[in-house]
Amino acid sequence: MNIAAAQSGGPTCAINASLAGIFTAASKCPDIDKIYGSVNGIEGIINDELVDLRTIIRTNEDLELLKLTPSTVLGSCRYKLPENDEEIYGKIVQTFEKNKIDMFFYIGGNDSMDTVMKLSEYFKKNNIDIKVIGVPKTIDNDLMCTDHTPGFGSAAKYVAATIQEISRDSSVYSVKSVTIVEIMGRDAGWLAASTCVLKANDENAPHLIYLPEAPFSVERFLEDVRRMLGEHKAVIIAVSEGLKLSDGEYAAEGFQSGANDSFGHKYLSGIGKCLENIVRDEIGCKVRSIELNVMQRCASHIASKTDIDESVRIGEEAVKAAISGQTGKMMAFKRISDRPYFTEIVTVDAGDVANKEKLFPKEWINNQGNNVTPQALDYFLPLIQGELNILMKNGLPVQFKIPNWF
Amino acid sequence: MNIAAAQSGGPTCAINASLAGIFTAASKCPDIDKIYGSVNGIEGIINDELVDLRTIIRTNEDLELLKLTPSTVLGSCRYKLPENDEEIYGKIVQTFEKNKIDMFFYIGGNDSMDTVMKLSEYFKKNNIDIKVIGVPKTIDNDLMCTDHTPGFGSAAKYVAATIQEISRDSSVYSVKSVTIVEIMGRDAGWLAASTCVLKANDENAPHLIYLPEAPFSVERFLEDVRRMLGEHKAVIIAVSEGLKLSDGEYAAEGFQSGANDSFGHKYLSGIGKCLENIVRDEIGCKVRSIELNVMQRCASHIASKTDIDESVRIGEEAVKAAISGQTGKMMAFKRISDRPYFTEIVTVDAGDVANKEKLFPKEWINNQGNNVTPQALDYFLPLIQGELNILMKNGLPVQFKIPNWF
Repeated sequence: MNIAAAQSGGPTCAINASLAGIFTAASKCPDIDKIYGSVNGIEGIINDELVDLRTIIRTNEDLELLKLTPSTVLGSCRYKLPENDEEIYGKIVQTFEKNKIDMFFYIGGNDSMDTVMKLSEYFKKNNIDIKVIGVPKTIDNDLMCTDHTPGFGSAAKYVAATIQEISRDSSVYSVKSVTIVEIMGRDAGWLAASTCVLKANDENAPHLIYLPEAPFSVERFLEDVRRMLGEHKAVIIAVSEGLKLSDGEYAAEGFQSGANDSFGHKYLSGIGKCLENIVRDEIGCKVRSIELNVMQRCASHIASKTDIDESVRIGEEAVKAAISGQTGKMMAFKRISDRPYFTEIVTVDAGDVANKEKLFPKEWINNQGNNVTPQALDYFLPLIQGELNILMKNGLPVQFKIPNWF
Repeated sequence: MNIAAAQSGGPTCAINASLAGIFTAASKCPDIDKIYGSVNGIEGIINDELVDLRTIIRTNEDLELLKLTPSTVLGSCRYKLPENDEEIYGKIVQTFEKNKIDMFFYIGGNDSMDTVMKLSEYFKKNNIDIKVIGVPKTIDNDLMCTDHTPGFGSAAKYVAATIQEISRDSSVYSVKSVTIVEIMGRDAGWLAASTCVLKANDENAPHLIYLPEAPFSVERFLEDVRRMLGEHKAVIIAVSEGLKLSDGEYAAEGFQSGANDSFGHKYLSGIGKCLENIVRDEIGCKVRSIELNVMQRCASHIASKTDIDESVRIGEEAVKAAISGQTGKMMAFKRISDRPYFTEIVTVDAGDVANKEKLFPKEWINNQGNNVTPQALDYFLPLIQGELNILMKNGLPVQFKIPNWF
């Protein structure tokens, strides 16, 4: 029996850790012969581009490095499987049959779970005995049916540690200042909300948190900033890139039309830069915006040990689930308790996750819509705990690379 | 006898380490009674705003945390001492005499060394026996008369580690892409050049490095990028924020007038975004620009142990130099050898550093003006070595804070 694994969607620090988990569990299983990796997600299955993972993960050191290497070592894709396309499904079946693959593991987000659902249904309908299991990942933490997602904890740890450093940096001069930090999250504000973890270490920053789940008003924003400037020398603001206006339009897009508020602001940029310009124009104080950009999804040098360990474990459990005969499922975390932090790994229907989004709970947003409640802190804090023992060489983290690939 | 120390200019990861060094050496000296910190650089001396550092650095743990906390715990300033202003100099003398301060240590860049020079000359001229010693710091590494500057090694380590992660992140999809990373350095390209350290770990990224010291041409840039796209899937480019055109004008400013190249590009933004737009317009491939922003000067969670240890040591040596009767000097590193890396700490005239800039050597730039030579790698590599044992609490670095200050 052979198996195959693939990685899909945007990079995180933990996708390779889940691949390492799948590899480890499969290696321990005497019934499994070849462990294939599919190049660039499901596209590698469609095009029969597979690599024998045992030829690239050759030592324990390789495996350990893989766990700590961000992004996707097998490449990724944004390909969405069509509903009815016999040619595509035919190619997929051909690759699986030709390579004697009985189990397929797809590490990805809600689009990938759509693939898991469609493939497993197609196989069932056509009496093909191939098990398909999804392994979640996304720094957005927006997948249904799981307490949280692999990759999120590491992103949250990087963002919080960085905001703490930005807070130190911004408070050196005697003049008052505002610093706006734009954080990934197009529709769900989990990552921006997670910056509340700094409260656990008695940090005041971020003083304000704005999420897509709370309709954004420029007028209220300016009131909030003015009030905070009265209380603090350096005001730090965490904003989700996907802030929305009360009519549901993305605020950054609203600013491009200039028709979103009573000031008529018109800016062609991301939300951080828009808000920087608004603070400059309306308040006139020193202001800066910072986009954390792709670093928030790939800063593995400060990954959360909890996140990486769980990501390995959920990959291992995926293999066990497939061996036990399950298919069309996504592996998921079920939280048993916050303190001590304890989770179980369970299976849920991929169809309940596919194409859906789990938003940040409205009841964890404060009444003013400019911060989160203590419940959110209890939820986030366990996910960023622990540091990894990162192998350094010449002063830099050593990462896993497939020779001649990059 | 009392002493005072102050911090000036832009934040780095190592300014507090040098303050800790001054504090440690002074604490060991039985002749020194009070160790004052001046709030917001020389402004605190002018306005008699001093804190007794023994009341805020109370334990060994405080001292260790201070070494690992970025930015300036005493605040900073951009104040430049006037040439002849008896009122200002009178206030300074008053503060020093009132508080019985016989030695003043100023941690800063070339503007601060101007203050060190002017103050020491004023004291000599007026027969006032107060010793003034400068302690260098800047992530720009552009101070004369010293092999390198405290703060630079940590910035270089963060930037290189981040570019390695960005390189992993950018290579996941099958489409070709260009990623432009904008790095601090208005006139001197040391920090962008230092990204060559990744070569020591067999990384291809960054594939191209552009510095203010090599005149920038859009035509040659596009040729370089096209050639690299032929060889690599994901091209990573390190650019100094202060790229200059052949007439010496800042390239980003040139793009604002639209008159800087044969294409007539006109963009209102930093150089990274300008080059992103040019690549999109002229080559049409997937392209992204990333500004590392203030993180490059405050990311103490991945500080260089060599940098922090040296920054403490140079602060300690500053106290010894003042005690031995020196004044008007800046402490400096003199490199004895690259491998094994060994430096001596010496004193140089602050006047030889004040208001000057040390540019990246032209002979370390390759003939094409798009990368650096192996000599640069030998120079940079020792400066990023070693990691610090950072105290973590609740999954985040613990930092030194003065209660009620921030």
